[in-house]
Amino acid sequence: MKLPLILASSSPRRKQLLEQIGLKFEVYPSQIHENLSLNLSPEIFTKYWAKEKAMDVAKSNPRSLIVAADTIVVLDHKILGKPKNKNDSYHMLKSLSGRAHKVVTGVHFSYEKYGIDRTINEQTEVSFNTLSDSDIFYYIDNYKPFDKAGSYGIQDWFSVQVKKVDGCYFNVMGLPLAAFFKEYRRIKKQLEIL
Amino acid sequence: MKLPLILASSSPRRKQLLEQIGLKFEVYPSQIHENLSLNLSPEIFTKYWAKEKAMDVAKSNPRSLIVAADTIVVLDHKILGKPKNKNDSYHMLKSLSGRAHKVVTGVHFSYEKYGIDRTINEQTEVSFNTLSDSDIFYYIDNYKPFDKAGSYGIQDWFSVQVKKVDGCYFNVMGLPLAAFFKEYRRIKKQLEIL
Repeated sequence: MKLPLILASSSPRRKQLLEQIGLKFEVYPSQIHENLSLNLSPEIFTKYWAKEKAMDVAKSNPRSLIVAADTIVVLDHKILGKPKNKNDSYHMLKSLSGRAHKVVTGVHFSYEKYGIDRTINEQTEVSFNTLSDSDIFYYIDNYKPFDKAGSYGIQDWFSVQVKKVDGCYFNVMGLPLAAFFKEYRRIKKQLEIL
Repeated sequence: MKLPLILASSSPRRKQLLEQIGLKFEVYPSQIHENLSLNLSPEIFTKYWAKEKAMDVAKSNPRSLIVAADTIVVLDHKILGKPKNKNDSYHMLKSLSGRAHKVVTGVHFSYEKYGIDRTINEQTEVSFNTLSDSDIFYYIDNYKPFDKAGSYGIQDWFSVQVKKVDGCYFNVMGLPLAAFFKEYRRIKKQLEIL
């Protein structure tokens, strides 16, 4: 059966990742913005916001499979979202310099017509080089990473500062492809039986 | 100073990675093809062939910094190069299914005018899902991975089968960006002093 798919995200990286694995889909970004002040564990936090985003788009699209995701950077149990400005960006990158942090993504699948409502979660550890101030300023000025959790994009110039990834690389870009595809296939199989 | 840079490789992925970090360069592929029958350790093997490739291009371009790389997949101490045909591709992927292997890249820097002649090496561990035969055939038929060591591209559909990367992700694409950039900067700094 044909599975109409909607990506409920404005992230160009998530769109690129779904294209990379050959899926056909439409993009309807949700109007939900995560609220960092919610006191939840990274796993519950990302699952909660992924679901909020998916439900927002699902209510007007009950006849499609909606996929939404929420990605955060976690350092010393503190959640880093997107930087508000240049100063915020500088402090985020400075705090991530020379050490490892976690990238956590929640992915929610919603297909109202068939009662599907599921969330998965993925964590990846990323280790950075020690960053000089001149590197940090060069990066902020040239790449303006204000739409990125933790203030860096692993797929742009910043890749030269990434010493090591431990886990799913695509999770760091915003969508854990292997875990996503496993669940997507499971849903597809389930619907074929219906 | 301006550092004229030549990438001695026909790999579109290596070209994309150098572009990703904003470098300006020209591409002159070498005419050297690795010979898998050489009985060397993965580290020495990849360093040897990276140097051979760089030297091949350096002889007619002594006034540029030449960068060449050689990437292999290593499973149970056996080196997997590029598959010769569909059958070879199937057996490679079948042998990699459900387990971890190593991706090893040697990168050689040559700048004859200034006597620069250096090689670096990087290893990354990659873990695959268990692959069904239908997935393997789907992949070979649709992506024709005959120009890729180990018969897969981590940046195409195959990414859904990659459970875990441990180390430099870009190394798996053919060029370890963090290690490359560190050495590139070191050379640039050294030449500025001259």
